[in-house]
This record gives sequence, C-alpha cells and structure tokens, in this order.
Amino acid sequence: MDSMDNRELLERRHKVLGTHSPLFYEQPLHLVRGEGVWLWDADGKRYLDVYNNVAHVGHCHPRVVEALAAQASTLNTHTRYLHENIVNYAERLTAKFDDSLSMAMLVCTGSEANEQALRMARQHTGKQGIIVSACAYHGNTEAVSELGTAFMPEAATSKRVKAVPVPDSYHGVAGVAQDDLADAYANSVKGAIDAFEEEGIGFAGMLVCPLFANEGLVTLPPDYLRKAVGHVHAAGGLFIADEVQAGFGRSGKHWWGHQFENVLPDIVTLGKPMGNGHPMAAVIARADLVEAFGEWGMYFNTFGGNPVSCAVGMAVLDVLEQEQLLDNAVQVGAFVAGGLRALQQRHDIIGDVRDKGLFFAVELVEDHGRRAPATAAAGRLINAMCQRGVLISRIGPHDNVLKLRPPMPFSKANAEQLLDTLDTCLAQL
Amino acid sequence: MDSMDNRELLERRHKVLGTHSPLFYEQPLHLVRGEGVWLWDADGKRYLDVYNNVAHVGHCHPRVVEALAAQASTLNTHTRYLHENIVNYAERLTAKFDDSLSMAMLVCTGSEANEQALRMARQHTGKQGIIVSACAYHGNTEAVSELGTAFMPEAATSKRVKAVPVPDSYHGVAGVAQDDLADAYANSVKGAIDAFEEEGIGFAGMLVCPLFANEGLVTLPPDYLRKAVGHVHAAGGLFIADEVQAGFGRSGKHWWGHQFENVLPDIVTLGKPMGNGHPMAAVIARADLVEAFGEWGMYFNTFGGNPVSCAVGMAVLDVLEQEQLLDNAVQVGAFVAGGLRALQQRHDIIGDVRDKGLFFAVELVEDHGRRAPATAAAGRLINAMCQRGVLISRIGPHDNVLKLRPPMPFSKANAEQLLDTLDTCLAQL
Repeated sequence: MDSMDNRELLERRHKVLGTHSPLFYEQPLHLVRGEGVWLWDADGKRYLDVYNNVAHVGHCHPRVVEALAAQASTLNTHTRYLHENIVNYAERLTAKFDDSLSMAMLVCTGSEANEQALRMARQHTGKQGIIVSACAYHGNTEAVSELGTAFMPEAATSKRVKAVPVPDSYHGVAGVAQDDLADAYANSVKGAIDAFEEEGIGFAGMLVCPLFANEGLVTLPPDYLRKAVGHVHAAGGLFIADEVQAGFGRSGKHWWGHQFENVLPDIVTLGKPMGNGHPMAAVIARADLVEAFGEWGMYFNTFGGNPVSCAVGMAVLDVLEQEQLLDNAVQVGAFVAGGLRALQQRHDIIGDVRDKGLFFAVELVEDHGRRAPATAAAGRLINAMCQRGVLISRIGPHDNVLKLRPPMPFSKANAEQLLDTLDTCLAQL
Repeated sequence: MDSMDNRELLERRHKVLGTHSPLFYEQPLHLVRGEGVWLWDADGKRYLDVYNNVAHVGHCHPRVVEALAAQASTLNTHTRYLHENIVNYAERLTAKFDDSLSMAMLVCTGSEANEQALRMARQHTGKQGIIVSACAYHGNTEAVSELGTAFMPEAATSKRVKAVPVPDSYHGVAGVAQDDLADAYANSVKGAIDAFEEEGIGFAGMLVCPLFANEGLVTLPPDYLRKAVGHVHAAGGLFIADEVQAGFGRSGKHWWGHQFENVLPDIVTLGKPMGNGHPMAAVIARADLVEAFGEWGMYFNTFGGNPVSCAVGMAVLDVLEQEQLLDNAVQVGAFVAGGLRALQQRHDIIGDVRDKGLFFAVELVEDHGRRAPATAAAGRLINAMCQRGVLISRIGPHDNVLKLRPPMPFSKANAEQLLDTLDTCLAQL
C-alpha cells in the first residue's frame, strides 16, 4: 500500500477517532501482519519489534491463538457461573507469588486493575492519600489519572496524590553522596506520608512500578525500595506494585519486578503482557484485603475472568514455561546489554545503559558532565531506526531515554540486528 | 460432573477468588458449553438462556469466532499504528447514530467507557455534578461507583453525584396524577441541577440508561426523558446515555435505547453485547467534545480498538444485520410480551409486564393495590426456573422484577418454552 493510501486512512481516522488519538513516528506505520518478533507494514516491509511487550510470547503465537479460538467456540460467559478455567488460572497465577498474595481479581485492563487496587487500599485504611513517583503513568480512568504525574491533567489538581522524586542513581540529588541516596529518596516518601496526615487527607498507600519503567527504567539506589516500603508499612499504608510492564518474567531472573528489589507488596496489579494482546488484567492481593473489600462493596466485572480470557492467560504461561522464555530473557538480555555498553564506548551521546532482562534503557545526553537530556536526538533516532526496520520508543521525564522492550522470544540474531542498526543510526545522528 | 465436584470447585474458587465473588442461584451452575440460546452444565443438562445479553448474537456464534481467530492469527496490536479495522469499524458504528455523534473512542469495558464519558463531561463543563437515577449501576471503577446508587459504597458518600427518583409510571408519585408524572419527575432533575449550583459543585451532566433497565425496565411517563434532557441542556450540562444494556438493537425497533425516547445524547457509552463476550466497549460522542478532550489530556488505551476487537465487533454487526435480529426482536418480543400478559391474567402475583423488544420485566407484587414487592417469591421463582432449565434473573429497587433478556436469536419455540415453564413455576409458588 503506498503512502497515498496511508494518507487517506489517516484522514478517515482523524474524522472518526479525532486528531489527538496518538500515533507513533513522524510517518505513522500501517501494520498488517505480525509473527514472533516481526511486524509487516502494508507495503510488505518487515520490522524487528523491539518495543511491544503486549505481544509478550511473540505476535500471533499459534498456541495462544489456538487456546483463544478453542474456548471461544466452546463457551464464553461470566463469573457468576462456576467454571474451571478461572479457578485453574487464578491458582496457577497466584502460585507464582509469595504465599501471602493468595487471591486474584480478574479484570480487563491495567487501568481497571489499578482502580480496584486504589479502592481496596482506601477501603482498608479509611484514608485517601496515595504516593506515586514523579513522571508516573498508571492508566486512564479518573482515579488512576490522578496518579499520572507524567502528564495527566487530573494529577495536576489532585489533593490526594503526592509525587516523590524518581529514585535515580544516575542523576542523584545535588549535594547528596551516592551512598546516602537511598535514605534521601526514602525520606521523601516519609515526608509525603507526614504531609498527608498533617493535611487531614491521611495516608492509604504507595503505588509504583517496581522497575520505574516509565521513569526511565532507572537504577534504584541499593535498598531504596525496601526502605521506602518500610516507611509505608510503618504508617499503616499499603504497598501496591504495578507490574503491568514489569511482570510475567520481563526481567528474566524473576517473574515479578518487585522480587528484584526484595520487597513484598500487599497488592500487585498485572496487565499488558498477560493475554499476549487479549484484553485481560488482574489484581493479586492478600486474602484479608480481598475478603474485606468484597464485604464492603459488591464487586463484579462482566468480562473479567471469562473462560476465554483464562484459557488465553493459561496458554501464555504455558508458552513462557515451555519455551523457557525467562531463561532466554536472561541470556539474550545480557548479550544486548553488553552490546549497548560497547556502543556507549563509541558513541558519546549514550550517557547510561540500564537493563533488566529483556528491558533496556539507553539514556541520551548532551554531555557526560551535566548529563543534560538529548531529547531531540532521541526523537530523530527512533524515527531513523524505524526507517531501517527496527521499532523502538522512548521514555523518561525528558523523553531522552530509548526504550527497548521486545517480545520475549527475542533471539541473539535479533539482538545483533538491533545493535547493528542502532550503531548505524547513532553514527548518522 | 456431580455435585461433589461442584462443591470442590466452589471451595477452590472461594480460596483463590474470595467468598464474595458473586454467583447466581442457590445451587451455582457449573457451565461448560454454549451454542445459540443454549447453555449446558457439567452434567450435560441443557438450559434455555433468557438472561445473557453479552452473548448477543448467540453463544459462540461461528461467524464471530471465525473473525476472532482469523484476526488473532494475523495481527493484534494497538492503535498507535494505523490499521483499517478500527477505522472501518468506527465508521460503521458511528453511522448508526445521529450525524452529530460522529466520533468513537474504543475501550474494553462499560466501566472504562463511563469513566471517559464522565471525564469528558467534567472537562467540557469545568464542573463536577452528575445526576443519575436512584437504583443505578454503571460499573465498578471509583468515579463510576459513585454513580452506583443501587448499592455501591462510593455512591453513599459522594458529594458530586445526586440521585433523582426512578421515573416509574407503574408506582408513580403519591398525590400526583399520571398526566403530571413526567413534569414531576423532570422537575426533580431541575431541582438536582439547582442544588449542585447552590452547593458550588456545579452541574456537569446527567447519565442514565435510557431504558432504565436496572431500575426495573420501568415504563417512563411520556415525554419524561425529553423534558429532563431539556433541563440538562438548558443548564449547560451534557446528557450521557449508557447504552451498555440498551444498545445494539436490544429493543428491536431501534439500534439504541435513546431513540425510543426521541432524545439526542451528547455522549453514548456502549459495552456488554458489543463483542458477543469479547471485552470491548466504546464512547460515541460529538466531535467537538472528543477533540477538546484529546487536547486537554493524552488519551490512549492499550487494548481498546485493537484489530482483533474491531474484527469481532464488525462480525457482530454483520450477524445482527444478516440474520435480521432486530426484526426478530420485534416479532418474538411481541409474542413473548403477549404471552406474559396472558400469564398476568391467570397469576395474581404479576403486577405489571413491561417490554422493549427482547427485554422484558415482570414485576411481582403482593397485591394489586399497594403493589408491595413480592421479593421472596421472585427469588424462589428464578431458582425454580433454573431447576426446570430456564435461566432468568431479577432487578429493580426491591429485587422483585423478573429480568428476561435472552440472546437475540431467541425464537418463537424458545418463547413458548419460556412461557410454559414460567406458567408452571408461577403455579407452584
């Protein structure tokens, strides 16, 4: 399909979805097919996908599609009838968490999961205040938009949400030694808790992505999160880990991001990769919290936990285990990280390389002293990469951090293509 | 599967989902298969489904499953790339509304749709107050729970939501003549608007199901809704029609419930039947509202409007049109309504029969004078119907209104089975 057709499609889209519905790249991609780590556009051009974590076990994985089609042609109904799928799936999923996180609520999106986590925390504590990080995004419903300190309008006016600084070892805090950063950042959590109590709002909990992914996949000061969660629990609040990006083995070594930091959440929310694109998400929580929440207010979700979604979720777990994709994330992840660090030696614009399994952040800076963000260069780079057939994106408070987060079956050969293309594009910046 | 196995499944469910996750019937059903208007339990017993509107074009409709599987094996990704499916589907869907309702936002659940509608109304007006009916339920996220005057805890404490009385011709208002009911109920809307303004909260809009389904599918006083919406618009507020139950031709004569009442919403929300069980929902709204909303705050939904969901939604529209299911709703609906009114002649407990296409309410009362609710009898009746292989439920402020809402391919033979079984169960009450 030529660019004339794309322009026409874009015009029709603007008319029926509006002009603000976001699109990637200066020349939006018109995709028509996906398989494994590959995507094809309408012209038949192939792209290496180094961005989409939703297609977690690979685009259109046949095992997942088969499970979807088989259950959809057998029965798809809601959870007010008994069905094995939801019980089997919820048991298998909760078994991957600490014993204390024994109950599941199945929903359809990460926003829905975070909504129920917030309702649960506020019901449990009888208080309203939630701590998030600066530059956070957790979804698009109203209460969850209040958490969206990165750019959501509700966050700017909410009195019941406070943002603490991003715990970023690379940039740190002026006048604070590296060894003191964990305490300094954790103290900002304590300060926000105290402020909530003084203002009469009270403190309900802290909700963060344990990998601080949108914040730039920052390197946390050692022990920061454990110390911050210590303050949260000491004040009677709940710690909610938003694993929508970090979960399902993305980091390779662990199934869940919080396990990296040796902290135990009271509530975990799951989303994006859970159904390999099928709309499903979940809240995993302590049994006492779920039971008290259910007694407080009737909770039912029409689509959440339906037999089809649970069959899909089960197939995703099957593939992750059978294809040993967590091991792959560790091995290929290390290879990519090594390659990125080699590029850093040759390209001055790379200030920092950070990695967690198959999730990488490459921070582009103007110089290595001030570490000022090279935002415009990051924008040019992702468009150049796209033109050369490699899809990546960017994150961070200044949009200067390359975000590399491929489907989990990403191979060493894929990694070589990524690194070569990145090398070329960096050289041409 | 015998009842021992069901007990074990229920115990496992309680352990992993909690004891409050709602189930239908005194003896919960363990369903394993669905086809058309039929459901089968684990013992092989067949049930006529007169409840599930989510399986709108029939359980596991092969055309819908085929579309789902075909697109899921080709490409499933998000809307930051161009794709024909979302444009084609949004164009086809919006074409079924008034020309002024020209834009669509695709989401995953009715709760998500109502969240965005509320955010849009509050952004547009700069005010917070929302009017709903008493006995309303519109979803389970926090802001939407505030609307849930039927039983949601947030509704009890929200200052920015006011409930107006259910506009119910059958019960009416003490001391008000039938001819004056529309004005009386519409004046309560005007009163709530004035109260919001006096309290400094301001008025943003009214959100109701145009069929007042959860409220008991009440018969509206003629012209009530037009008058109420007149007050809403005169005060600068938006009228939001929640068509999650009423939409997609349920009422037979019209695609949308609001068309029955000759009112024009500013925003419409869609859900349940849209994907025949696949998690999808939408906001349909005026272009100026969508554009201003998009400019105000970035809106993106990871799963909403993906190519698979849009292929499924398209297949549902295909089946509705090709199998002429709106006509079927008119014809079979009239037959069922006639049969229910015949039963009313012979069973004193039936106080009122109301119908809109393939949606029926049978109000059970203690007597025809006071019309006091026969709540316990309604509970016994739905369980007796289930034992005899017919699935129905109940609604209304007193849970005394039988709710009959079968999949759209419901036939005259199905209707005869429903009416015969209802006759038998009523006789044995």
